[in-house]
Amino acid sequence: MILLTRCYEFPAAHVLASDLLSDSENARVFGKCANANGHGHNYGVEVTLTGPVDAETGQLVPIDQLDQIFDEAVREPFSHRLLNRLDAFAGQVPTAENIARAIHAALLPVLAERTRARLASVRIIETGSNAFEYGEA
Amino acid sequence: MILLTRCYEFPAAHVLASDLLSDSENARVFGKCANANGHGHNYGVEVTLTGPVDAETGQLVPIDQLDQIFDEAVREPFSHRLLNRLDAFAGQVPTAENIARAIHAALLPVLAERTRARLASVRIIETGSNAFEYGEA
Amino acid sequence: MILLTRCYEFPAAHVLASDLLSDSENARVFGKCANANGHGHNYGVEVTLTGPVDAETGQLVPIDQLDQIFDEAVREPFSHRLLNRLDAFAGQVPTAENIARAIHAALLPVLAERTRARLASVRIIETGSNAFEYGEA
Amino acid sequence: MILLTRCYEFPAAHVLASDLLSDSENARVFGKCANANGHGHNYGVEVTLTGPVDAETGQLVPIDQLDQIFDEAVREPFSHRLLNRLDAFAGQVPTAENIARAIHAALLPVLAERTRARLASVRIIETGSNAFEYGEA
Amino acid sequence: MILLTRCYEFPAAHVLASDLLSDSENARVFGKCANANGHGHNYGVEVTLTGPVDAETGQLVPIDQLDQIFDEAVREPFSHRLLNRLDAFAGQVPTAENIARAIHAALLPVLAERTRARLASVRIIETGSNAFEYGEA
Amino acid sequence: MILLTRCYEFPAAHVLASDLLSDSENARVFGKCANANGHGHNYGVEVTLTGPVDAETGQLVPIDQLDQIFDEAVREPFSHRLLNRLDAFAGQVPTAENIARAIHAALLPVLAERTRARLASVRIIETGSNAFEYGEA
Repeated sequence: MILLTRCYEFPAAHVLASDLLSDSENARVFGKCANANGHGHNYGVEVTLTGPVDAETGQLVPIDQLDQIFDEAVREPFSHRLLNRLDAFAGQVPTAENIARAIHAALLPVLAERTRARLASVRIIETGSNAFEYGEA
Repeated sequence: MILLTRCYEFPAAHVLASDLLSDSENARVFGKCANANGHGHNYGVEVTLTGPVDAETGQLVPIDQLDQIFDEAVREPFSHRLLNRLDAFAGQVPTAENIARAIHAALLPVLAERTRARLASVRIIETGSNAFEYGEA
Repeated sequence: MILLTRCYEFPAAHVLASDLLSDSENARVFGKCANANGHGHNYGVEVTLTGPVDAETGQLVPIDQLDQIFDEAVREPFSHRLLNRLDAFAGQVPTAENIARAIHAALLPVLAERTRARLASVRIIETGSNAFEYGEA
Repeated sequence: MILLTRCYEFPAAHVLASDLLSDSENARVFGKCANANGHGHNYGVEVTLTGPVDAETGQLVPIDQLDQIFDEAVREPFSHRLLNRLDAFAGQVPTAENIARAIHAALLPVLAERTRARLASVRIIETGSNAFEYGEA
Repeated sequence: MILLTRCYEFPAAHVLASDLLSDSENARVFGKCANANGHGHNYGVEVTLTGPVDAETGQLVPIDQLDQIFDEAVREPFSHRLLNRLDAFAGQVPTAENIARAIHAALLPVLAERTRARLASVRIIETGSNAFEYGEA
Repeated sequence: MILLTRCYEFPAAHVLASDLLSDSENARVFGKCANANGHGHNYGVEVTLTGPVDAETGQLVPIDQLDQIFDEAVREPFSHRLLNRLDAFAGQVPTAENIARAIHAALLPVLAERTRARLASVRIIETGSNAFEYGEA
């Protein structure tokens, strides 16, 4: 089995506060991360694909094509945004856990339509110490 | 499935020598690592958890809580110690393989008691070139 | 000569837009970085000090003390904020160049007052590809 | 289960062009990578083993022995070469996908013969942004 | 004083052999690096600029402009090439020392013509263990 | 001017406690680092040289020769040791500041005797967050 992992990075901002919680509960759960003006991260994104290697090209998927798909499905809608305002996070706190899930959901149909590769996992590196991976069980 | 990986680091010392081996056998197997005065490493520890994401907070486990658990169960007993003298390594050489197993054993019950997350694996980075992971098959 | 470099990290958000420019000029100069809702980064901060090594302790400055100073002078006022709203950036665009200068200005008097070390430089790592250093000529 | 990952690095050159494609097709598929004079990379190689930990030594496999096996089976035949000219890539384009497979094939019999460890995967890091892993399904 | 460092990466191949030496002398001096078919590296390039910060934009130089200059002056002529065949290395062995000097020479006039920034240094990262910096004394 | 930086790594142990201080003073100044059994680090060592580039070989100094000098002057006496017991730290606490100075002193005469390069600085990376550089003013 071959796995290809490609790393991307984009900056964005988020406010960690839930509509289901009061202000004081949000402050208790999320601390400074609940500040209404938001704060931000350079989100590292590791996209891992699997599938058959093309006998002619020796490749799982052309890197240029993967970059194109990432730009359309992820960078364009997510980069340089306040994530809380995006439809992808309606009713959800844009934690790294939910960002991993949202980017997985954004990539899945486009990859299925345009490539023969399968999306194995999406990994979000939020800081130098934390990573969050969403994939199949 | 969501996986959260959090990275920690602590310094410690160890002597690589087995009570089951003679001095010359220890020297042959472990080389300079068998020097009786010990040597040390900054052990990188990557703790990976899995489990359900809380719908309200969007988190697998609060990072502050995980840090607290790590400090109690790992940093306090292991950091700045000569590992050979710890009960966790009684009858065992404190190799990175055994350190991974010991830290996994130290974290497992505390995580089970205080969180809904499951410990997927513990990975020890001993040097820039070596990593040792202990987890479920 | 001894130089000590200590690395910190904090998240914040900024909007790259100048009051001296029109909206369309800001969009031309700063691109997506001018989006009014802001975006963010994990700012890496490398603080470099120099000075005499204490003969008794063998240290330039106690790391705990430096951490305390950084928390007071930098993390408290800058972390998890929208930088544009801070006094430190009044009349200035909070680019990485200006963040380096502002953090240098924040650390300088506190270090001078509490330690014998001299602030050699402040280096801001904004993304994996960019670093900005402010120091003495 | 214990996994040991050891990281190596070697430089080599390759030309990305398939004998099954015309010159213009190769240029379209591989771009500048099809230049006949070749270009190169420092290939990072992460070798991951699994198996029983020796009760006496506390080790999965002695690192020195693994280094020796890597030098014989991989560094000697692959390092500082134009990969297209090696038998291991006869009829194949030496893409990172195929390099991962070829190094896996080179290590598998030697590890089986000399150690009790099992080869879990071989991961090739071609650039700071791309990794390719070959392992068992 | 403000210093901006921007990191780039490109792959290329080289043969380490001098026209001034015999084959056996080249083998003695350069070892496997003298293999006539060449081998390669991902060359990391850290370009460091200094100069005045623009009061309006808060920037030393627009990153987009620097990227454009790097693409024209360095990536286009050096990337994916066998460096020994380039005019920039006529009569010179394309060691990392000489690559640093050649890239410095390629960037200097373009930066002087199009920006107000001054080229402080060019640093070549050849492998994870080696870096070579060319700059003003 | 050309600068060559080469990175090495070795493990060692130290106890941070001064003979000039009482036990309680040592505990106050050095905290857990004063534990009598010692603890350890993988010390990263960045050796930076400068000097003329040889016209024939295009090199400042052959890397193999530098590695040989490092092994003799640093790795052999310092690696896998309890640093407090070495003559190089007689009357000194083996802090990273003093380790940088001791390694600089160990390399200086050997480099002067065997190469035409000059030792510009020695940088010790003690943890992922701390670096200490000793060089000429």
